[in-house]
Amino acid sequence: MNDVIFEAVITTLSGDGQPHVAPFGVRYRGAQVVLMPFKPSTTLDHLRATGHAVLNLTTDTRVFAAAVCARWLDGRPGAAPALRPAQAITGVRLADALAHSELRLVDDDDHAERPTLAFERVLDATHAPFPGFNRAQAAVVEGAVLVSRLQMLAPEKIDAEFAYLQIAIDKTAGEVEREAWGWLQQAVQRQREGAAR
Amino acid sequence: MNDVIFEAVITTLSGDGQPHVAPFGVRYRGAQVVLMPFKPSTTLDHLRATGHAVLNLTTDTRVFAAAVCARWLDGRPGAAPALRPAQAITGVRLADALAHSELRLVDDDDHAERPTLAFERVLDATHAPFPGFNRAQAAVVEGAVLVSRLQMLAPEKIDAEFAYLQIAIDKTAGEVEREAWGWLQQAVQRQREGAAR
Repeated sequence: MNDVIFEAVITTLSGDGQPHVAPFGVRYRGAQVVLMPFKPSTTLDHLRATGHAVLNLTTDTRVFAAAVCARWLDGRPGAAPALRPAQAITGVRLADALAHSELRLVDDDDHAERPTLAFERVLDATHAPFPGFNRAQAAVVEGAVLVSRLQMLAPEKIDAEFAYLQIAIDKTAGEVEREAWGWLQQAVQRQREGAAR
Repeated sequence: MNDVIFEAVITTLSGDGQPHVAPFGVRYRGAQVVLMPFKPSTTLDHLRATGHAVLNLTTDTRVFAAAVCARWLDGRPGAAPALRPAQAITGVRLADALAHSELRLVDDDDHAERPTLAFERVLDATHAPFPGFNRAQAAVVEGAVLVSRLQMLAPEKIDAEFAYLQIAIDKTAGEVEREAWGWLQQAVQRQREGAAR
């Protein structure tokens, strides 16, 4: 498959109404949104239980960094992202998303390891305009990918890529991006302390 | 100065109506948009001549890549970006921007090397929602920064960073990002052929 993959945030509710916030690579196929979660996945459990999810499009990189740092930092760092009720489905959305789409599950191939799930859009809402690319936000997203693979990558590779990404942080970041970047750096440090023990 | 810098596209007209399209790092200060062009700058000449500019927020990375590749590839590669007339000022905007703002120059510090120019927004328009981060788009933006500094950077550094950025291209790019990335690779090749002669 060779579709463009966008880094979004999927918010779901469990069968008994507990919210879950997860960064997710999504594909668009015509008007549909396609998710391919690796099992096990809380998001997968939730959207199969409810048949609904919300696609949130945000440039707040703390959501992406916090998710991958949680296992290294004794839980998700920072404040929990503020949520709002969805409008057309039973669900929640990120309060500060630039846009969100409320989704209904219409197809599930039930693949054993990595199912493909297709959703139709029940409602699309735009809340704020795209402010432009920010190199520091992209660096946080790349840093989050590296932290998600900490145990598979050599420390030298992590250090080299973090040094490169640091340039964009230094030149173009705001407070939000600096906070997210700090969590990623702490996660690398904690993983190494654990590996050294 | 430690503001967040967003990578946008500024479109201007010369005094006699010739359009100019330039990627630009912009800052937001309250409702104002701030540009700090290095001299000489066609954009600077145009906006001083007319007192207006358009801020375009686009995820079409070809605009960013084409601008930095032009000097290495015998002119700007690819088709010229489609333009539309501005609505509230004499100017043009990118036809496919996600959002654009029509700007009026309100302050110019006239600095000799890098003036700071502040603009007020005459009109803001959103055309399409932000589709989410795309790692390949970010890789093209970073590649464009590297190509803009080809003569200042060691070939080994260029190769190492391009190899890292290639991962995001391979995993998440669409046709648009692949085309832009191809131009950047060609520019590196041409610069080296020139350096070897």
